[in-house]
Amino acid sequence: MIDYRTASDLVQKNILSPRIEDVSIDAALGRVLTQDVIADRDYPPFHRSSMDGYAVNFAEIPESRPFQLLEQSVQYAGKAAGELNPHSCIKIMTGAPVPSGADTVIKIEDSQKTDDLVSFNPGKFFSGMNIALQGEDTRAGELLLPRGTIIGPIETGCLATCGLTSVKVAKPPAVSIIITGDELAMPGDAIESYNIRSSNYFVLLSFSRKTGIEPVMLFSKDTADELEKTIRSAIGSDIIILTGGVSKGDRDFVPEILEKLGFENIFHGVNIKPGKPFWFGRSRTTVVFGLPGNPFAVMTAWKLFVENFLLGSMGAKSANPIFLPIAQARTKKDKRNEFFPCRIETRDGISILREVRINGSGDIRAGLLTDGIGLHPAGAEILSSESRIEFHLW
Amino acid sequence: MIDYRTASDLVQKNILSPRIEDVSIDAALGRVLTQDVIADRDYPPFHRSSMDGYAVNFAEIPESRPFQLLEQSVQYAGKAAGELNPHSCIKIMTGAPVPSGADTVIKIEDSQKTDDLVSFNPGKFFSGMNIALQGEDTRAGELLLPRGTIIGPIETGCLATCGLTSVKVAKPPAVSIIITGDELAMPGDAIESYNIRSSNYFVLLSFSRKTGIEPVMLFSKDTADELEKTIRSAIGSDIIILTGGVSKGDRDFVPEILEKLGFENIFHGVNIKPGKPFWFGRSRTTVVFGLPGNPFAVMTAWKLFVENFLLGSMGAKSANPIFLPIAQARTKKDKRNEFFPCRIETRDGISILREVRINGSGDIRAGLLTDGIGLHPAGAEILSSESRIEFHLW
Repeated sequence: MIDYRTASDLVQKNILSPRIEDVSIDAALGRVLTQDVIADRDYPPFHRSSMDGYAVNFAEIPESRPFQLLEQSVQYAGKAAGELNPHSCIKIMTGAPVPSGADTVIKIEDSQKTDDLVSFNPGKFFSGMNIALQGEDTRAGELLLPRGTIIGPIETGCLATCGLTSVKVAKPPAVSIIITGDELAMPGDAIESYNIRSSNYFVLLSFSRKTGIEPVMLFSKDTADELEKTIRSAIGSDIIILTGGVSKGDRDFVPEILEKLGFENIFHGVNIKPGKPFWFGRSRTTVVFGLPGNPFAVMTAWKLFVENFLLGSMGAKSANPIFLPIAQARTKKDKRNEFFPCRIETRDGISILREVRINGSGDIRAGLLTDGIGLHPAGAEILSSESRIEFHLW
Repeated sequence: MIDYRTASDLVQKNILSPRIEDVSIDAALGRVLTQDVIADRDYPPFHRSSMDGYAVNFAEIPESRPFQLLEQSVQYAGKAAGELNPHSCIKIMTGAPVPSGADTVIKIEDSQKTDDLVSFNPGKFFSGMNIALQGEDTRAGELLLPRGTIIGPIETGCLATCGLTSVKVAKPPAVSIIITGDELAMPGDAIESYNIRSSNYFVLLSFSRKTGIEPVMLFSKDTADELEKTIRSAIGSDIIILTGGVSKGDRDFVPEILEKLGFENIFHGVNIKPGKPFWFGRSRTTVVFGLPGNPFAVMTAWKLFVENFLLGSMGAKSANPIFLPIAQARTKKDKRNEFFPCRIETRDGISILREVRINGSGDIRAGLLTDGIGLHPAGAEILSSESRIEFHLW
């Protein structure tokens, strides 16, 4: 049995190479960039007024003579920059290009205007005031978004700014998910007292969709024949994820069938709670996660291993845990690294983790209304209250 | 001009009543529940073995006589519970219902088997061992998910468990977004040196989609006529969001046209940086946000006001900020509450906020590759390094 970090490393070592596709930037939200995004020109692309005011030549302000206002022409945003005559000024709007001959914009409130003559009080101003200079944010050719970036709302704006109408992103890998367990029914099915409905089906489907993947969902009864047939039907996928049947019970056929079908076992069993019975392996073309059957063990394994594998296989980095203090002390008897569900609460202006107690990894409440899972490390019998722990947001 | 908390409160006071629709649980991810979800039966629904082992009557263990193993019948998951004869035991698998007459499950490793006789070492066991009792997680009728819950991956599993095939959720409000600015072009359009491409279009579209809303996207040139026509065309929406034209420049027609069209102004101007020129108001049926035009001001206003309004109008709570220390000290001259973009980094096992410096709210890099915005409060000129601040995740 291997520990959590070793298992993570082995999973990461087997990530797939991203396949690439073009998508319209309208459909790029949540996808992973497989190209760098470079500034197509200087930004700002011109000297830009950041205020409504008068554009002037700063050097002329100390002369006490008022400036001639060009009444007919206001420098609006979206219009070509005009030109100033000596000792003149022009009204300019926020976002407009600064006329040639001007280097300073003075707010209207800081001026006196009589007919078409405008004067400013010297001493209050500086050269370049209220102007964003061409290229001061970024120069043409500079890197704005590196490949591997997950495209969030703000990044979609950057793609548009740079004039991209489509962008290269990772094509989501083909994923098949196989739910096993004779006791399982689907909502809507008639059930007997000894049946339960599969929550793993929807949890895994939803988590997949959150990473941009639409998996093929399959069921198998707990017989060696049906399981073999179902796994064979999924062999064209890049990734197969199974739940249940991975332990050592009489009908836990998953490890034996996978090995029969030629999948190499990389590890079987991880020293964590929950989620110890976990089979990971691969063939030349397909990577297989054999997850436990209990719902909380499935969520934990997804978060710690599967999601990061999927991100890596699209060229993105693993999600980083954050570190927050826990509200209440916590004791464990088990020597494994133990993960437990928490909500983030605010207490006296501090974010703290509030453990949401459950009866075990089969508890149907496990994970509900929580923000993620905290780690009670293998070596620590007691976590004292206020101690800072590793926390993985769902 | 009002402060940030007052503006937040006024926005919250105007949230709309959620409209309700039914969706299949397959399409419920990310939606807001408008019904409570109640446990349809006890969970576990039967006394369930949490281990592969032998089911026995604990009271009979102290008798030294071996137990008769019912060789022919294994208690599998998904099969009706059998019955034990006195002083017999039956092999049972994880997830299976415990046979009547049994109250304890003992692991196979803790037994000795000879032919069809099994014995256990007294003293190592306790009554109820390795059994999850019917109803120990939740009782039929108990509340599992209250209305107002945003349905995440784990919550979709709960809906399925409770046998729901569809669920009542808030219908997303009808939102129109109007982008104003004569300088703006779309990616793919031919542009002049004094044009810029609209990042706000994609940022607002993407943020809307993140909350489950597909907005109608509109453009208006900076003329009173076109703006009036465009706003009129959006009046059937529940919510209109405008960007730009909201300040006091010669072509900032938004406040005047909104008032002309009969919208009541609730506030105009919020004492925050960025995002001071912000118009909020409503008619009887439509709420209007007039946001500034600069990209970083738009993102900030979205995060602090618009998103929480949309969540509220679907019956959900506002997103809570978290509180984290900043890596480096920070000084400000402005007396307003100031928001600045940060990344969360890990330093020596502590999560810290790293400010990502920008030139101002028109900087095209603003917000890129960050996790959210931190608050430098109005009253504090200096934030010392390591001090804990309010942080809003994007």
